[in-house]
Amino acid sequence: MNKEIPYKIYLDENEMPKQWYNIRADMKNKPAPLLNPGTLKPMTADELEHVFCKELVQQELNDTDAFFDIPDEILRFYKMYRPSPLVRAYCLEERLQTPAKIYYKFEGNNTSGSHKLNSAIAQAYYAKKQGLKGVTTETGAGQWGTALSMACSYFELDCKVYMVKVSYEQKPFRREVMRTYGASVTPSPSNHTAVGQKILDEHPNTGGSLGCAISEAVEVATTNDGYRYVLGSVLNQVLLHQSIIGLETKAAMDKYEIKPDIIIGCAGGGSNLGGLISPFMGEKLKGLADYDFIAVEPASCPSFTRGKFAYDFCDTGMVCPLSKMYTLGSNFIPSANHAGGLRYHGMSSTLSQLYHDGFIKAVAVEQTSVFEAAQKFARVEGILPAPESSHAIKVAIDEALKCKETGEEKTILFGLTGTGYFDLMAYRKFNDKEMSDYIPTDEDLQNSFDKLPKLS
Amino acid sequence: MNKEIPYKIYLDENEMPKQWYNIRADMKNKPAPLLNPGTLKPMTADELEHVFCKELVQQELNDTDAFFDIPDEILRFYKMYRPSPLVRAYCLEERLQTPAKIYYKFEGNNTSGSHKLNSAIAQAYYAKKQGLKGVTTETGAGQWGTALSMACSYFELDCKVYMVKVSYEQKPFRREVMRTYGASVTPSPSNHTAVGQKILDEHPNTGGSLGCAISEAVEVATTNDGYRYVLGSVLNQVLLHQSIIGLETKAAMDKYEIKPDIIIGCAGGGSNLGGLISPFMGEKLKGLADYDFIAVEPASCPSFTRGKFAYDFCDTGMVCPLSKMYTLGSNFIPSANHAGGLRYHGMSSTLSQLYHDGFIKAVAVEQTSVFEAAQKFARVEGILPAPESSHAIKVAIDEALKCKETGEEKTILFGLTGTGYFDLMAYRKFNDKEMSDYIPTDEDLQNSFDKLPKLS
Repeated sequence: MNKEIPYKIYLDENEMPKQWYNIRADMKNKPAPLLNPGTLKPMTADELEHVFCKELVQQELNDTDAFFDIPDEILRFYKMYRPSPLVRAYCLEERLQTPAKIYYKFEGNNTSGSHKLNSAIAQAYYAKKQGLKGVTTETGAGQWGTALSMACSYFELDCKVYMVKVSYEQKPFRREVMRTYGASVTPSPSNHTAVGQKILDEHPNTGGSLGCAISEAVEVATTNDGYRYVLGSVLNQVLLHQSIIGLETKAAMDKYEIKPDIIIGCAGGGSNLGGLISPFMGEKLKGLADYDFIAVEPASCPSFTRGKFAYDFCDTGMVCPLSKMYTLGSNFIPSANHAGGLRYHGMSSTLSQLYHDGFIKAVAVEQTSVFEAAQKFARVEGILPAPESSHAIKVAIDEALKCKETGEEKTILFGLTGTGYFDLMAYRKFNDKEMSDYIPTDEDLQNSFDKLPKLS
Repeated sequence: MNKEIPYKIYLDENEMPKQWYNIRADMKNKPAPLLNPGTLKPMTADELEHVFCKELVQQELNDTDAFFDIPDEILRFYKMYRPSPLVRAYCLEERLQTPAKIYYKFEGNNTSGSHKLNSAIAQAYYAKKQGLKGVTTETGAGQWGTALSMACSYFELDCKVYMVKVSYEQKPFRREVMRTYGASVTPSPSNHTAVGQKILDEHPNTGGSLGCAISEAVEVATTNDGYRYVLGSVLNQVLLHQSIIGLETKAAMDKYEIKPDIIIGCAGGGSNLGGLISPFMGEKLKGLADYDFIAVEPASCPSFTRGKFAYDFCDTGMVCPLSKMYTLGSNFIPSANHAGGLRYHGMSSTLSQLYHDGFIKAVAVEQTSVFEAAQKFARVEGILPAPESSHAIKVAIDEALKCKETGEEKTILFGLTGTGYFDLMAYRKFNDKEMSDYIPTDEDLQNSFDKLPKLS
């Protein structure tokens, strides 16, 4: 029988994971390799090392080793803001009057406001170890850029962030956090790069896009000595680092003899979902335990539920390698959904393979219902959630209400990836009932699918 | 000898304090009573109950009982975001290369972003218990209003917040958090109240002031059935509730056999400082242990270091009772310091008495140096601190650097009251080197002192 479960379970420092877990090692069907867009052959380590840090390339390509030691320097940084709490949502359960038991792993208690810091500190560490001067990246809403600027500041690395111009102007708070941590933040497109200048010449009034910002960041990394490009989601290495979320969760649950029936995560590029489910999925793949995994995506950007499983470009600029994944097409223009972190056209190739093989379910939810769930959660659990995270809350509540109907005492676990302190203009729209829902038509999607690269 | 100290010490739930501690019970010289501004006689419970909740009035007036049981409903809410971590600042120590050991009690890991929630939930609970419909309050920067809106939402109480108009317009994010938690937020002065209307008639373009917002909130509470007024600092009851900070800190330190030599807190109205030091001060008053207590205030609003110990009005509208305290005069207009929570002309009467009796030291620090300390801290400890909290950081760093000179291995404890996520326009000024320091002249202060009420 279970011990009495506290509201928040914190592992002791000596119980914190010392290794990351690489789910690919236990997958029978491995995720397909990245392809060189020129040759259409698998990207080699040599090719990738022009763009990414050496050791991160090794992590990216390794689909056989199940565990990677977490370097001491990273463990040390993790101790500043980890372990994150595994919270029993007693108050939410009571408000819903559900027999279900609800838990959430809360990753928002750090200044970046999300789980992104878990991979940012790892990527900054390997850049430092390689003797680099600095790293470049893009950011949209700003969570990843904030996390990376914190990590670079800690290791005294230069950090150049290309921020989508419209966000740069509309989210001055995020920009100032990054600057306070010493990063340079440039609105993209900029005239610092050839690709940025070209876009500015053609579209002088553009607000920019994530795809353009990626292209600028990659150009700066590859044309400046001592710089590499880093990315906050989608890649295998990111899922590896984010496995810390799931490993801590599993250790905390094992300690109290809790076994989740349903595990829910929001899914944009897949960094949080992949990290949260990794060790549980490992058990499922090995036949040691069974869990229901649910990926939640916005109905406005439904990669899993309405996308194609195909090779596609990771960026809209089409300069990055091709990845086999569930995709809406790199030409798909996501609508103005407030969950900026989930507005990616593709999905981690690892999660895509697992979904394709039937190990994960997916649901798409509409924006207004997500904010209703966010508000309900905030009022009883005392945390104002990020719009991204609220997708998982919405489905956790739905599942708990199903239990209320059936009387089942299921244990539901979801990932609460971050806080909504920098998303209050979205909350304002919700509070003022000005929020709209948007779902792409089949025709919209078909137009985008028609432009997918033809590989043979 | 000490056990190995983790980066973060979390008490177990069963180690959390079950009672608040009332420092007044152990003071030989009690704080002077509140006076009725009309009769100049001590305010009676009957008089106070027109404005405040009944049970809170009892707490306000009780200077003999050392401990008050924390009601179960409040303990339950505390478990959602408490215990707060006591953090060993290993990274800051290393960066400073100091032999000092630095600890901070971090109160920012909740959506209100500060310690204010500790008293908000208590005040909301007693209002609910009394069967009230709701409460009214004022807010400047918005921390207290946010905390109260969260607490009222939890107990399903109506919450009417009067927010200084200039903040209402400049801090839309705070306003939206409060609205998301269901509070009504009115820019003050408003035409909802007689006092607001009068000010608007005289000064139609005013940006408002905290004093005016207090007057409006008190008017609404006293002229509407089922409402009472609540306040987030200064009062004895608030210090009582905030003793949870110090009690948790002391329990955590005792557990690891740590004894602080110096205890540092920022001081505006005194809610955080009073809460943090309470149990340590109790030991000092009883001669059981010795500690150095340092109150840190902004040089622009130096109540302790340059104020008078005298009876004065708690509000600029001069409708509230008179309190004996260190004050700059209720007519003193604090300059545009970004640490909005420290811009109060007076100080808790309990802390004022302790300071007067020599149990607390005080220092005043300038704004730019505070932000320099904040940035240094943020970069190594991973938390972006509130400007208020950063006053304590500044002096903790100064003390640690003194230890570096002398070689003393002192143990320094400070209160990190909250996060700076809603203060990023202040950080922008700092990042752009547009921040200025302002210190009132002796003449400014004398002009204000001349208007102090004459009691005899």
